Order: sequence, then C-alpha cells, then structure tokens
Amino acid sequence: MSDYPSILLEQAVNQMASLPGVGRRTALRLVLHLLRQSDADVEAFAGAFTRLKKEVVYCKECHNISDTELCPICASTRRDHSTICVVENVQDVMSIENTGQYNGVYHVLGGIISPMEGIGPKDIEIDSLMERVSKGNIAEIILALPTTMEGDTTNFYIYRRIQNLESANLKISQIARGVAVGNQLEYTDEITLGRSIVNRTEFKG
Amino acid sequence: MSDYPSILLEQAVNQMASLPGVGRRTALRLVLHLLRQSDADVEAFAGAFTRLKKEVVYCKECHNISDTELCPICASTRRDHSTICVVENVQDVMSIENTGQYNGVYHVLGGIISPMEGIGPKDIEIDSLMERVSKGNIAEIILALPTTMEGDTTNFYIYRRIQNLESANLKISQIARGVAVGNQLEYTDEITLGRSIVNRTEFKG
Repeated sequence: MSDYPSILLEQAVNQMASLPGVGRRTALRLVLHLLRQSDADVEAFAGAFTRLKKEVVYCKECHNISDTELCPICASTRRDHSTICVVENVQDVMSIENTGQYNGVYHVLGGIISPMEGIGPKDIEIDSLMERVSKGNIAEIILALPTTMEGDTTNFYIYRRIQNLESANLKISQIARGVAVGNQLEYTDEITLGRSIVNRTEFKG
Repeated sequence: MSDYPSILLEQAVNQMASLPGVGRRTALRLVLHLLRQSDADVEAFAGAFTRLKKEVVYCKECHNISDTELCPICASTRRDHSTICVVENVQDVMSIENTGQYNGVYHVLGGIISPMEGIGPKDIEIDSLMERVSKGNIAEIILALPTTMEGDTTNFYIYRRIQNLESANLKISQIARGVAVGNQLEYTDEITLGRSIVNRTEFKG
C-alpha cells in the first residue's frame, strides 16, 4: 500500500494513520468509509474535533475537561468537597465515576512524573493541588495513580509535598493494590501476589 | 464509560466511534490524543477529510479516485489501454498495482451486485464499462472481483452483458483461483482445494 491514486486521499490517510494504533491499511479503510458518507456527515465528523479543540475548557478547580468554568462534579453541592481523589487523566475520572463508589471530588494531574519521558512535577498539575490543600477544609487525599514506577514516584512526591505544608492535618491514602476480583492466584504476577499477602486485610466474615 | 464530563468531548467521541471497528473506549482514547495536539495539528487532521470529500474527483474513464479528470493510470501512455481489469473498489486497484504484475488499465465498479444489500447493476459502474467496451479497441477484460457469491454473480452479469454487445470480439478472463502461495493443503478449504484440482494448469518444469 504505497502509491495512492490521489494526493488528497494520501493526505487524509496520513492524518488518520497519525492516530495511535491506526495503521495505514486501516486508515485507508476508514477514510474510504468517510468518503462514502454525505458532505454533511463528513463536515460533522471533522467539525467535532476542531470545535472540541477550540472550545474545550478545563475545570479551574480539578482540571478535568469541562464545558463550563467549574465542572459538574466540582459545582455539585452533593459531593464531598473535603475528599480529593488524585488521578492521572480524564479517563480515570470517568472510570472511577462509573464504579459509583466515590462521592468526593477529583484532581486531574494531566500526566504523571516520568524522568524517562522528561515529565517533571512542574509539567503536571501538582502546584494547583498544593494550593487546594493549603486553602484547608480538605480531610483526605486519595492517590489513585497507576500502580507503576511512575505512579509510585508521583505518589511519593505528592506525599512529601503535602507533609511539607505542615498546616495540613489530613489523611493521605492510596487505592488498594492486590489480586483483581475474579482472578485466579496462579495467573496473578508474583509482585502483586506477594504484596497482597504482606498487606493482607482483616477478614470481615 | 457512559457519562462524559463535557458535551463537546462526547460529540467528538460519538463521531470517532462512528468509524467502522472503532469502539467507544478506543474513540475516547483517540479523541484525547487529538486534544493533546496543537491547534494547527487538529485543524490539519479535520481539514484533510473535509478537503478530500469536497475536492475528490473520480476518473471519468475508470472511476478510480483521482486528483485530475483522468487518473494517472488512464492518462499514462505506457499502460496497455486495450486491457481492462474490473475491480470492486479503490483498495483493489492499489493492491494490484503493488504486485507490479499488471500493466493494463482498470475499471472501478464501486461495489458489486448484492441482492441482500439491495445493490443492483444500476448502482455500480457497469453501464460505463459497457460504454468503454462498445467504443472498441479493447482486447481483454479481466474480472478481478472478490471470489464470493456476490463476486461470481457480478462476474456472470458482466460476462452476459458483454456477450450481448456482439460487436465485442474480446477475451474475458478472471483472476486465477486456487491454493494461496505458501499455504499447506490441509489448511486450505475444501471448495478451493477441489476447484484447484479440477482447474489444474499445465506444469511448466
């Protein structure tokens, strides 16, 4: 699949193939699918992305994607504003919301500390988290970052920064790590299984 | 993944998920990837599709996608214009071109006859193929349609239409069907294997 019969087609395929995980053959298939749609449909397709990029707002409190200055979660009076769940990105907010198990608010870092990728604490929303904590009225910070080296590094960095605030007399917790619900022990990796024994919890029969 | 924090985001995800084979979770990931790109990059992404849709031209001779009235293949004096290879779509032209084994011209039907999907002979570029044949100077028509029931139906329909032209004194061939190169016989389906024995070709040692 090298020679395209049309430069316009090739450019469209190049753009489609720039998306992560989309190969050139798939991109061609998707572009030819679009080409079979009506003018209005293609306009709507393309317009959705430019409009999102132009008009998107990030909540001034938690930095989640929003249509308004304050996102619906931060604006809600039904949520517990003294508990902040720190997450890496927008998808994580949606995932936790979908569990229906959390009633606090969020703080979206927009990334995690990764020396390998050159992402430092100043590149993500840590200073604004410290500001929120400094204002007081926060009882608990839940660290819900990926259970990776980068996640652990970021967890520790945030923990230290909050300790340094002194003023803050709050609980810092992290999401439970262990054997995923429904998993067989023999298919669980050693590190997870080992930690789940060390960090065992009381059985409430 | 049901509640989006932003309507703009949801609309963009809906559009992305309208592409065949793209689920909502993947669509969200792709949209958030786009959102991390620059304004100019998102404009270029969206613009490529609207520009393609608005400005795309189909070759007046073979109906392949083109940037010009006559596509580069039909305009080429180095190609054999007396041999027409009939294919279903644009991808098929690209696939055959990539083999480097064909020096004739093409005719892109833009579909194949499929009573199940309500696609009849009038819905695809068969009349224009007959016009090309009627003009004369055609020595061979190669039917290179999918080796499916729909492909066979379309092959037979075209064959009959060309027979009816009478004037046409040309060869009608179809691409060889048989065991794919590199395949084990035990993994070849019965129909293909059976036909490959019936339609055996002379061994040229």
